Amino acid sequence: MCILERFPSSSPGDHHSKEFEAINMLKTVPVLKEGDFTLIESVAILLYLTRKYRTSIYWYPPDVQLRGLIDEYMAWQHDSIHLKMQKFLWSKLLIPLITGQEMPKEKQDELLGEVNVNVQLFTDHFLKDKPFIAGNIISLADLLAAMEMMQAVGASYNIFMGKPKLNAWRQRVEDSVGARLFEEAHARLLNIKKWDTSFLDPSVKEKIVAMVKNMAK
Amino acid sequence: MCILERFPSSSPGDHHSKEFEAINMLKTVPVLKEGDFTLIESVAILLYLTRKYRTSIYWYPPDVQLRGLIDEYMAWQHDSIHLKMQKFLWSKLLIPLITGQEMPKEKQDELLGEVNVNVQLFTDHFLKDKPFIAGNIISLADLLAAMEMMQAVGASYNIFMGKPKLNAWRQRVEDSVGARLFEEAHARLLNIKKWDTSFLDPSVKEKIVAMVKNMAK
Repeated sequence: MCILERFPSSSPGDHHSKEFEAINMLKTVPVLKEGDFTLIESVAILLYLTRKYRTSIYWYPPDVQLRGLIDEYMAWQHDSIHLKMQKFLWSKLLIPLITGQEMPKEKQDELLGEVNVNVQLFTDHFLKDKPFIAGNIISLADLLAAMEMMQAVGASYNIFMGKPKLNAWRQRVEDSVGARLFEEAHARLLNIKKWDTSFLDPSVKEKIVAMVKNMAK
Repeated sequence: MCILERFPSSSPGDHHSKEFEAINMLKTVPVLKEGDFTLIESVAILLYLTRKYRTSIYWYPPDVQLRGLIDEYMAWQHDSIHLKMQKFLWSKLLIPLITGQEMPKEKQDELLGEVNVNVQLFTDHFLKDKPFIAGNIISLADLLAAMEMMQAVGASYNIFMGKPKLNAWRQRVEDSVGARLFEEAHARLLNIKKWDTSFLDPSVKEKIVAMVKNMAK
């Protein structure tokens, strides 16, 4: 089995290539490939890995209510955390890096505002006064949420600063998986700013510029 | 247990009220309420109901790959089908109905274009040449997909017309659940166009207009 990731270190932007399109016509990353079986979408891949490798029960506990809380966050985050964080990362970091042009400050502020509104909803509705989303123990939902929020950090914006409850939760997630693994998991994301885009295939670059223009609307 | 739905027939727009906010601060519908336990997000609610009431196995089969395909669609559809269909429904039907003003034709065409691109991806990637998303039998993913696509029909746009493969799938979904239940499940959606918005609470209307302005960007 292999998992094709975001920004493969070998050749960034590869997921817009013809070769990648043959594996996943939707041109999204990550992709799980196991023989003839291909699976896209982070949430589906996380659930698949949990089942296939019978991971520790707390990642996705069988209790219907706890599982409900995990599913609830994993469904809500698509438009509210993932999409907003991704737009912010593109606007603040990737667009200037790839196109050489800054996004208008007003647009950046608007996207950052949306990020902060949704992070507040996350804290108030999903976290409330619990240590983790599903209660006392870490689950897939916390892993996914922490990873998405680290996108802001990757774009040099410390989303946890001035938010003690959110930051304490992030620390609990880091402590649960171990500082070393937490760092390793986010290393590529935190190093995007050093990405040398001059090696980017011009046709891939063109496609990204077109996509970015659409996103900037 | 009760499920608070979209457009409650008693008082449309109720999910923007203070009373509803006390139940769900995110002000989204549907909401499942069972004693003290509250659950939002359609996908999480469908999965909860499947587990809680031990529904027929085909809705969410235990096979890891089939379950993977269902999860994959249910994760992908948030931004690609649900959000696009919702924007189209608001633009084509609800904005004129609530505000009395038509959206610019150019914006409507743009939203319809996005709907059609994603419906094509659904047909090519998720359906391929299978009768249903997970293979030979209907699952939660098909239920969700059919319901979302009926939003276009609710806005008087027959998304299935001129798309024989998609339409044959829709017919199979209808046959699987039974024509009567299929009709009953979509009756409210197909009747939105008859909704008399003059009874809408002015403060609720104001909030909707503000939200709509944001969506129209």
